[in-house]
Amino acid sequence: MKITFIGLGIMGSRMAANLLKNGADITVYNRSKTPVNILVKKGAKTAASINAAVENADIVFSMISTPEAVAQVFLKESGALSAMKKNAIWADCSTVNPSFSLKQKAAADKAGIRFLDAPVAGTKPHAENAELVFFVGGKKSVLKEVEPYLNFMGKKIMYVGGAGKGASFKMLVNIMLAQSMIIFSEAILLGEKMGMEKDFLLNVIPGLVVAAPFTKFKSEMLRSGNYEVQFPLEWMHKDLHLAAVTAYELGQPLYLANIAKEIFAGANKKGLGRLDFAAVHRYLEKG
Amino acid sequence: MKITFIGLGIMGSRMAANLLKNGADITVYNRSKTPVNILVKKGAKTAASINAAVENADIVFSMISTPEAVAQVFLKESGALSAMKKNAIWADCSTVNPSFSLKQKAAADKAGIRFLDAPVAGTKPHAENAELVFFVGGKKSVLKEVEPYLNFMGKKIMYVGGAGKGASFKMLVNIMLAQSMIIFSEAILLGEKMGMEKDFLLNVIPGLVVAAPFTKFKSEMLRSGNYEVQFPLEWMHKDLHLAAVTAYELGQPLYLANIAKEIFAGANKKGLGRLDFAAVHRYLEKG
Amino acid sequence: MKITFIGLGIMGSRMAANLLKNGADITVYNRSKTPVNILVKKGAKTAASINAAVENADIVFSMISTPEAVAQVFLKESGALSAMKKNAIWADCSTVNPSFSLKQKAAADKAGIRFLDAPVAGTKPHAENAELVFFVGGKKSVLKEVEPYLNFMGKKIMYVGGAGKGASFKMLVNIMLAQSMIIFSEAILLGEKMGMEKDFLLNVIPGLVVAAPFTKFKSEMLRSGNYEVQFPLEWMHKDLHLAAVTAYELGQPLYLANIAKEIFAGANKKGLGRLDFAAVHRYLEKG
Amino acid sequence: MKITFIGLGIMGSRMAANLLKNGADITVYNRSKTPVNILVKKGAKTAASINAAVENADIVFSMISTPEAVAQVFLKESGALSAMKKNAIWADCSTVNPSFSLKQKAAADKAGIRFLDAPVAGTKPHAENAELVFFVGGKKSVLKEVEPYLNFMGKKIMYVGGAGKGASFKMLVNIMLAQSMIIFSEAILLGEKMGMEKDFLLNVIPGLVVAAPFTKFKSEMLRSGNYEVQFPLEWMHKDLHLAAVTAYELGQPLYLANIAKEIFAGANKKGLGRLDFAAVHRYLEKG
Repeated sequence: MKITFIGLGIMGSRMAANLLKNGADITVYNRSKTPVNILVKKGAKTAASINAAVENADIVFSMISTPEAVAQVFLKESGALSAMKKNAIWADCSTVNPSFSLKQKAAADKAGIRFLDAPVAGTKPHAENAELVFFVGGKKSVLKEVEPYLNFMGKKIMYVGGAGKGASFKMLVNIMLAQSMIIFSEAILLGEKMGMEKDFLLNVIPGLVVAAPFTKFKSEMLRSGNYEVQFPLEWMHKDLHLAAVTAYELGQPLYLANIAKEIFAGANKKGLGRLDFAAVHRYLEKG
Repeated sequence: MKITFIGLGIMGSRMAANLLKNGADITVYNRSKTPVNILVKKGAKTAASINAAVENADIVFSMISTPEAVAQVFLKESGALSAMKKNAIWADCSTVNPSFSLKQKAAADKAGIRFLDAPVAGTKPHAENAELVFFVGGKKSVLKEVEPYLNFMGKKIMYVGGAGKGASFKMLVNIMLAQSMIIFSEAILLGEKMGMEKDFLLNVIPGLVVAAPFTKFKSEMLRSGNYEVQFPLEWMHKDLHLAAVTAYELGQPLYLANIAKEIFAGANKKGLGRLDFAAVHRYLEKG
Repeated sequence: MKITFIGLGIMGSRMAANLLKNGADITVYNRSKTPVNILVKKGAKTAASINAAVENADIVFSMISTPEAVAQVFLKESGALSAMKKNAIWADCSTVNPSFSLKQKAAADKAGIRFLDAPVAGTKPHAENAELVFFVGGKKSVLKEVEPYLNFMGKKIMYVGGAGKGASFKMLVNIMLAQSMIIFSEAILLGEKMGMEKDFLLNVIPGLVVAAPFTKFKSEMLRSGNYEVQFPLEWMHKDLHLAAVTAYELGQPLYLANIAKEIFAGANKKGLGRLDFAAVHRYLEKG
Repeated sequence: MKITFIGLGIMGSRMAANLLKNGADITVYNRSKTPVNILVKKGAKTAASINAAVENADIVFSMISTPEAVAQVFLKESGALSAMKKNAIWADCSTVNPSFSLKQKAAADKAGIRFLDAPVAGTKPHAENAELVFFVGGKKSVLKEVEPYLNFMGKKIMYVGGAGKGASFKMLVNIMLAQSMIIFSEAILLGEKMGMEKDFLLNVIPGLVVAAPFTKFKSEMLRSGNYEVQFPLEWMHKDLHLAAVTAYELGQPLYLANIAKEIFAGANKKGLGRLDFAAVHRYLEKG
């Protein structure tokens, strides 16, 4: 099987590297060339253009920052979708909103391409260590063909349902992540004001049944104040926005998620957008 | 050691029963007599008044619904505190705000009584199965004397610091509980609107690293719509209020916790206060 | 000058009637025919299709419920814009988001049509009595040609700036309207709980410098509980959504407006969407 | 009639000066002596202690910053209340929560003193120019005796109802003030991001029916960035807190007011507490 991987950012570069490490026949493409060159040195192929990169692929994976960028690369006239082989598979691992996911599906159908939405849970270290979780929407039979490669990049594949359901589920995961990070931060800050040691709080709270377990992996950031990016704060802001738009379209009020959105908006305005989203703690602490 | 237990509600009656089961010499007291009689049948002693119930005790445990009620029973002139033996221990397991906890400490000091604030994490089944977690504030030496009895009632004792620190830590735990319950509920509701099965969501989400693990124990309530009380919604509303007051006193903004407080206020106004606090899901679903 | 008016809902039908009353040579069009027939009886012309209705017009006014509907009528291929005379004026009075307004401008430019965004402040009675306020974006010279007709429909024309600025300003007005309505309602409800008479509160508060003066015109609704629609609650929900999207695009946090959006979402979910937006009071009172 | 005025801060010093200007026989008292000396030079009397200041008074006015301070001065054992003549009148103009107001009433009854709660609307310039509005709770017959003196200090007296109702109404006024200030600020900030001139927005918005008219008097502050204190931001934070406590006690959810409370908490934490409350705009702008 010929595999192509489009989008070699924080996540994509590590995912592609894991495909390579497991012996996949892989072509990579990215706008900026540094990550391309690194992978080519390790044995990946590349191409002069996106369309050239995808034209022979059996499966195209993509990991791109926003729905707008995905549209720009794949959906526009003579975009990558139009260059792919009929009946090839496009598995998009980007985080997009569900209604965009359905647009991707429709465009793929029209182009004779089989589509999966396959966004991931996990950040840089999970991508690095092939410990991602994939939430997959689309046809089970298509997933079956892609599954071995997803297993090279992740530790768990969760089949959620038809087209767009992977994106839908990922959206739920991300808004829980964003809100839990704020709850955790506010608890630490209040605890300190109450006279408890920050270290004690950072050690104990993430292990309680009332705290989302991922907070364990953020405690060190809050301790050191070093928010080296794993999942950029500005993307979390975007995901909360997409969730708010989706909730509006579906008529579902979301009180806490909308306030969380504004808190991330404030943090972003303060210039913290390129740090890890855990830096919302710094914003809550210092304004 | 002579033990007295004051306050035999949902939690207290089960905690006292566990002391009894482990062979403690225990006297119980409660305003309404039904839970007293049940424990007396099992071997507990009782007394004609609160003051008579505490006067010979080496350790008095209390588990009472609100700070106001604790003050009424223990702190008023000729209240239980005045009737206790000098140097006896009062371990209050009630959930109160930290500034009230310091008042208890001061009153106990004045009366020559050694005080611990020892609130618990856990609900009815944890009380039943001696699986509570105690958050203890006060002197370590005093805790040492009380520890064997706490172990009869719980599975873990966490020493947090000086007087009031148990109450402080419990407050953090409860506001995380309240907010996580709303986040979980809103995710389920949005997921359903997105076309995912409620059962699927209830099965999968509590196991993710983005969800507080206690949500596992609430999934069945959300599935069945049967919110049989473990921790009453109206008490959660009170705890959020006490946290908001404490945060105000300490100058710490709490955005999400204050909105959570208002959502619980709305649920309470709708008449859901005596159900389990997980019934906030019903409120978010049906208004 | 030949005038065409597209969209004869609550507002549009009254605006067109005022043009007619002042002697304008007017052609009207609406999907449902009842309001068309009423105006035709009073002397208006109509046409067999939207495109036929606009093709001879010097000025086309439109008053349509959502950006999507405006796009459907005017912007699609062979839509109304394509049928208009070169150099004619399209003055859109609909409430849309500013970024959509700029799309309208671009499409109009391409079609050789001069565009004004001219949304209004005011509700049914203001439309009825020609007491609307117009917020106008676009070229001043174009406004000059349209001004006499706007004066037939309103009492004040506020020139805000270039294209899209009318829509921008209208957005500010509407989010202030929505939030002030909630503040007013919550004050009335809290006042009643404090033991003050609802009538007293409804009489006195709207006259204070702390209350937005429009609340005077809503007091009777809150008194009687009869929320006969002037400005539908579901449209207010939409406007808050569009403002939230705009604020996201521009990187400006909006705390209160986003919570207001969710409260309107809740009211809408409860089935109050077709009542006047003042019915948010009923939602806040009864859930 | 012998009048005593206790509390000569920003507001109280100007109110006492207006009593003096109108020929009242007035004794003043304040902890710090500077404002006392200024009024004594203009003809006021003073006394060596609070109790000496009130002992001959027919009417005692007070204007004190917090309920705690009022309690400290008047309600403690051998406080000012105990030193007053039987049947004298205590008219408290301080802003307190309604439940504290009822405590004042009960303590006054016990001491044989007639009590009015008479908080004011207005800030420094209104106090200066005798343009305050009084919201009065208590007996009408008592108000009749006090009325001439209130008229020296204000332009309007609004009788709201029995004891505590003045305080209750004032609370409504202040939470509307706080929230409207945020709504206004957020509208200005969003407007600027949309490309409108700040000056244009500050000139036009306060005159619209959707804006609380008091915003006219804050526009200059927002323009210049000079938030010279008229009503301190930290007091507004306190008033929102007292309203939240009252709403909790009465079971009324207040969504927007609670978020407004947290925004003021953030502004206060940032060190803006001693500026005018309009400085919440600076906080929303710069964090």
